[in-house]
Amino acid sequence: MKRVAIIGVTGAVGQEFVLALDKHPWFEVKQIAASERSAGKKFVDAIRDPDSGILKWHLKEEIPEYAKDMIVESVDDIKPENLDLIFTSIESEAAREIETRFAKDVPIISTSSAYRYESDVPILIPGINDEHVNLLNIQRKNRGWKGFVAPLPNCTTTGLAITIKPLLDNFGAQKIIMTSMQSMSGAGRSPGVSALDITDNIIPYIPKEEEKVRIETAKILGKLVDGKITPADLKVSCTCTRVPVIDGHTESVFVETAKHTDPESVKKAMIEYSNKVSVADLPSAPKNYLLVHDDPTRPQPRLDREINGGMSTVVGRLRQDTVFENGIKYVLFSHNEKMGSAKGAVLLAEMLYKKGFI
Amino acid sequence: MKRVAIIGVTGAVGQEFVLALDKHPWFEVKQIAASERSAGKKFVDAIRDPDSGILKWHLKEEIPEYAKDMIVESVDDIKPENLDLIFTSIESEAAREIETRFAKDVPIISTSSAYRYESDVPILIPGINDEHVNLLNIQRKNRGWKGFVAPLPNCTTTGLAITIKPLLDNFGAQKIIMTSMQSMSGAGRSPGVSALDITDNIIPYIPKEEEKVRIETAKILGKLVDGKITPADLKVSCTCTRVPVIDGHTESVFVETAKHTDPESVKKAMIEYSNKVSVADLPSAPKNYLLVHDDPTRPQPRLDREINGGMSTVVGRLRQDTVFENGIKYVLFSHNEKMGSAKGAVLLAEMLYKKGFI
Amino acid sequence: MKRVAIIGVTGAVGQEFVLALDKHPWFEVKQIAASERSAGKKFVDAIRDPDSGILKWHLKEEIPEYAKDMIVESVDDIKPENLDLIFTSIESEAAREIETRFAKDVPIISTSSAYRYESDVPILIPGINDEHVNLLNIQRKNRGWKGFVAPLPNCTTTGLAITIKPLLDNFGAQKIIMTSMQSMSGAGRSPGVSALDITDNIIPYIPKEEEKVRIETAKILGKLVDGKITPADLKVSCTCTRVPVIDGHTESVFVETAKHTDPESVKKAMIEYSNKVSVADLPSAPKNYLLVHDDPTRPQPRLDREINGGMSTVVGRLRQDTVFENGIKYVLFSHNEKMGSAKGAVLLAEMLYKKGFI
Amino acid sequence: MKRVAIIGVTGAVGQEFVLALDKHPWFEVKQIAASERSAGKKFVDAIRDPDSGILKWHLKEEIPEYAKDMIVESVDDIKPENLDLIFTSIESEAAREIETRFAKDVPIISTSSAYRYESDVPILIPGINDEHVNLLNIQRKNRGWKGFVAPLPNCTTTGLAITIKPLLDNFGAQKIIMTSMQSMSGAGRSPGVSALDITDNIIPYIPKEEEKVRIETAKILGKLVDGKITPADLKVSCTCTRVPVIDGHTESVFVETAKHTDPESVKKAMIEYSNKVSVADLPSAPKNYLLVHDDPTRPQPRLDREINGGMSTVVGRLRQDTVFENGIKYVLFSHNEKMGSAKGAVLLAEMLYKKGFI
Repeated sequence: MKRVAIIGVTGAVGQEFVLALDKHPWFEVKQIAASERSAGKKFVDAIRDPDSGILKWHLKEEIPEYAKDMIVESVDDIKPENLDLIFTSIESEAAREIETRFAKDVPIISTSSAYRYESDVPILIPGINDEHVNLLNIQRKNRGWKGFVAPLPNCTTTGLAITIKPLLDNFGAQKIIMTSMQSMSGAGRSPGVSALDITDNIIPYIPKEEEKVRIETAKILGKLVDGKITPADLKVSCTCTRVPVIDGHTESVFVETAKHTDPESVKKAMIEYSNKVSVADLPSAPKNYLLVHDDPTRPQPRLDREINGGMSTVVGRLRQDTVFENGIKYVLFSHNEKMGSAKGAVLLAEMLYKKGFI
Repeated sequence: MKRVAIIGVTGAVGQEFVLALDKHPWFEVKQIAASERSAGKKFVDAIRDPDSGILKWHLKEEIPEYAKDMIVESVDDIKPENLDLIFTSIESEAAREIETRFAKDVPIISTSSAYRYESDVPILIPGINDEHVNLLNIQRKNRGWKGFVAPLPNCTTTGLAITIKPLLDNFGAQKIIMTSMQSMSGAGRSPGVSALDITDNIIPYIPKEEEKVRIETAKILGKLVDGKITPADLKVSCTCTRVPVIDGHTESVFVETAKHTDPESVKKAMIEYSNKVSVADLPSAPKNYLLVHDDPTRPQPRLDREINGGMSTVVGRLRQDTVFENGIKYVLFSHNEKMGSAKGAVLLAEMLYKKGFI
Repeated sequence: MKRVAIIGVTGAVGQEFVLALDKHPWFEVKQIAASERSAGKKFVDAIRDPDSGILKWHLKEEIPEYAKDMIVESVDDIKPENLDLIFTSIESEAAREIETRFAKDVPIISTSSAYRYESDVPILIPGINDEHVNLLNIQRKNRGWKGFVAPLPNCTTTGLAITIKPLLDNFGAQKIIMTSMQSMSGAGRSPGVSALDITDNIIPYIPKEEEKVRIETAKILGKLVDGKITPADLKVSCTCTRVPVIDGHTESVFVETAKHTDPESVKKAMIEYSNKVSVADLPSAPKNYLLVHDDPTRPQPRLDREINGGMSTVVGRLRQDTVFENGIKYVLFSHNEKMGSAKGAVLLAEMLYKKGFI
Repeated sequence: MKRVAIIGVTGAVGQEFVLALDKHPWFEVKQIAASERSAGKKFVDAIRDPDSGILKWHLKEEIPEYAKDMIVESVDDIKPENLDLIFTSIESEAAREIETRFAKDVPIISTSSAYRYESDVPILIPGINDEHVNLLNIQRKNRGWKGFVAPLPNCTTTGLAITIKPLLDNFGAQKIIMTSMQSMSGAGRSPGVSALDITDNIIPYIPKEEEKVRIETAKILGKLVDGKITPADLKVSCTCTRVPVIDGHTESVFVETAKHTDPESVKKAMIEYSNKVSVADLPSAPKNYLLVHDDPTRPQPRLDREINGGMSTVVGRLRQDTVFENGIKYVLFSHNEKMGSAKGAVLLAEMLYKKGFI
């Protein structure tokens, strides 16, 4: 069993990590850490509201037994020498310092953006750009680290990159125009989106989100050549909005491809990609990596968010686009708190473990 | 005073007509009609639920006094010889028959799609394509009618065409990619969208809507030459979705223009268009025909739907697009039950009256 | 295996029956029936929207394999001679005729109110008033039926009666004042509550609901003596409202008891009742028949509706009431589409089977 | 013109004060104050988000001209010697200190609970317990103040006390059982209720609320005798819940009266009370102080919150209750941000002005 720690364990994503690692066949949680305020408490007490005594456990599944009485430690008490892997889920600024400190000794899988845009840091989506893992070795050498930092993409990038990958491989995706309708859980929980702001409303702006999607998509789908990632030759433009949906991001995508194609061929390419995806056998992989609906009323967040435990990227409304030279349009759904976050990070850990990086 | 009738007066749009014509300086409601079930009843009784006795008046303003005791007549009792104008708000199939019958004698302004795609029928947005009114004379001659049918566009087309117009005039809009997030009131009220379907959800499909927007936008922005409308050379592709918002459609728009431009110039062009718009002096025209926000969190349905009585088209998030050759992107908001429906129809009537068509 | 039929199989409750009977250890679905419109079609085709071809399956679990290709028959083709039990989920008026017809030959468990208020018909909640089953024999004799009709209570009564039962047994509940906040799924799906009516709103009225709760609660908690049910000596007054919640009814309850009691004793009585409940070993029974939260922020519909598959009645906020002589107040949550409907009906069937009635 | 100040001007209630005092015939805003962070800025700049530059103005009406450029001062710069009245809207703890400091010199009308439960402090609802104003003189004398503190009740108490008053006067209300369904704006805006917590949900607990309603209702409806308020002999028990409604509290009320009565008589008593209410002529008073619907589907928050500018208390579903000896039940709606807050405070100021207290 590989020994892992979770830093930022009391937050919403941290709790997802606790759940996703419950009874994991390869990973065993040895340390959990959070801010000074929580340090020294049992996990169940650390997530208890101090005023009301109420448990702030955000998931509908119960708290795994293994975690309940584990003592939350301060970050300074993390012992990298006893660990094979650290999952982090912390604010970008703190992440920079903390991840730098521990990567010297141990691999880190991060949900933060702190390292995403460094040239020797891949943004990995298991099943999509597995070959980028080799950049981790260069990162180690560059920085003189025994460990590394492997960040996930932004949760809005995940579904987009996954659906574009088979289009790129088969038809040469070149231009992407995307409008997202993002769920409220994507904005976190402390305090998160105010109900007074979002009920019966749309907020058409999510700071920095559009730029992240633009840069990350091209990097993820790029090629690792001579120790450097050349971003894919993909133009991406998007508008990101927040809508009154609890979980799961919906994206309306328009793509121009180099070769002409049609909805049926795209569907075939997506299904084939899904069937052969490299990570199919990993413990956290879903039955369908990509799921394509013919029903034009799908995907719908309420109906699609629980399919395969939130790990499938769901596509619907595949149609010919009439603006681009060779255009395809579709709607995708991706669960921002599952495949787009902790559970996706565990899937990544599994892939790295299989490849000998952990 | 011009004498007008409302056909379909008991429905949601019909009620908006009743309100929009209250104390109108030029139009006086002389007849109101609905289905046989309502005929013979006072208006207040016709909109009363027969089982519960509850008034089904959908607007927050009170029922105008003039309408309360007016007798709802059957469509067969409409007397075109005593009327100068008929507003219709009926299902497309019924509209076809009823509008054909009455247009022989009297002008008709319709919210239905029955006649929209006929070659001698303009789709008019007052302030945008006023010169298309001349097609009404050709329509009259073609069909041997004393009246005519002047339909409004689909409510999703309205805001798009209004915002594209200054872009077309100044920079030559050529390609449009649009994703709509449409309100629930756009789906009507009998029975309308089920709360079980839309709460915490998005439905990514609205039957026929995308095709309507594509065809109507090009026709509205086209040129009337030699008695025929040549559609604008505009490619339009869209994805239309339903979201849990009560009133008002939000649209995320990406436009390619012939000439390079930038957000500041587009804003200027929109404001200038708005300031000089032909219909500015009409009774139902809003203070701002187009309103452009600098605040990136706008437009928002809850905040923007009551501005200027729902008659302004509101634009925000003007940015350079990076996919198109010369690209601009923005988010627009348009009130589907006000400018996009009965109040917009009354504004059209005012424009036609000023031009001597009524 | 007992051979069962489902009448009204295409509706929302009918679909719940299809799911609740999947792989059931004692019951095998032999016939399914619905209106003429569906008759002759496979189940999957019968629940398909004829215009759009979209499956109208309302549950997040998949359609059970056994049902997919079963042919939906017309009610007239139901063959009682080949059946041991029929579940019905049909409108009250049709139920009256259909249930009367088939009860001559076979037991019927009904979610309709058609027979609830007849003097020889018990309203059964398994675990609460099991001894009322003997009225079914009297019913048979009275009416000369081989079968019987055993109706469930209204879904708002279920949770109330379940929580009052231990109060009645231990402290003599005498007066109940209740305000319900009922979910939208309680209003059905054809068409169900309009999103335009309920979003950001409360509708303070549900026709006939309050009277049903008043009468049913007293009948369920009454005594069967000499072949007649004497209603419990319980005064019940309620106000039933509809709120923007998808599934599960919340009720705010104030109770006066004969003996003085306190929140801790009531909790104890509820837990004891739950632990010893008669139906604990039945296949559809939940782990906790009654669940009592100390956390004052519970029960909450979103957090409590999936506990134990929606079969637990969940109580919270147990406090002393200060208006009644001996007063207790609490909030309860009960899942109207699970324990309050088809799954509750299957639990009832299991209880009747164990007692030899089926 | 009386010279007034607003302390806590940047918050949600503070903004309501700014609006409610716009063009007021008797009061002129001379100073506005908030925390140190805002001090020295123009009002429009003080309510601007420092990161994004976005105006945090919460109301749909525009910011009144008079306020835009007023300088927000620190509380220490408030000059009581130049003021006739101070409105405060600050957290309870800070209120205690600040109100004590200024009441030495100038009358204070407060939305905080800091002083509500002191024996020489009346809780005033203009039109309901005007005669309690005399306690303000005793308060002055007791404390050696030139000013006084006059707090509003909790916003959940307001509607209850207003509807109980005519019942008490006419039929002797004795016991009240109430369940509230409170809007999200009642929880404030910094940060307010999280959308993730309340969407598709009910939270059955609002800390301290039930106790406030119990004590305040009896105090407000009590009698001032010999310089002391004797609380009304009213038992009040309630359960307060939060529901997904933007503005306005709904309450389900059950009342026992000394004399038998019936819904028609209660309606008559409420209408009569409303027609003769003492404050009818004040500038902020609504056309209907109490409004009674016969339509059983009312009151509804979305339909009733804008009636008379949110200043009417709206009653519906008047019925006989069957649990109490002489029981009446009904549902009320009261706008927590209008009559229950700043606009109600201004109405109170008007009443005190008329009586010579300001």
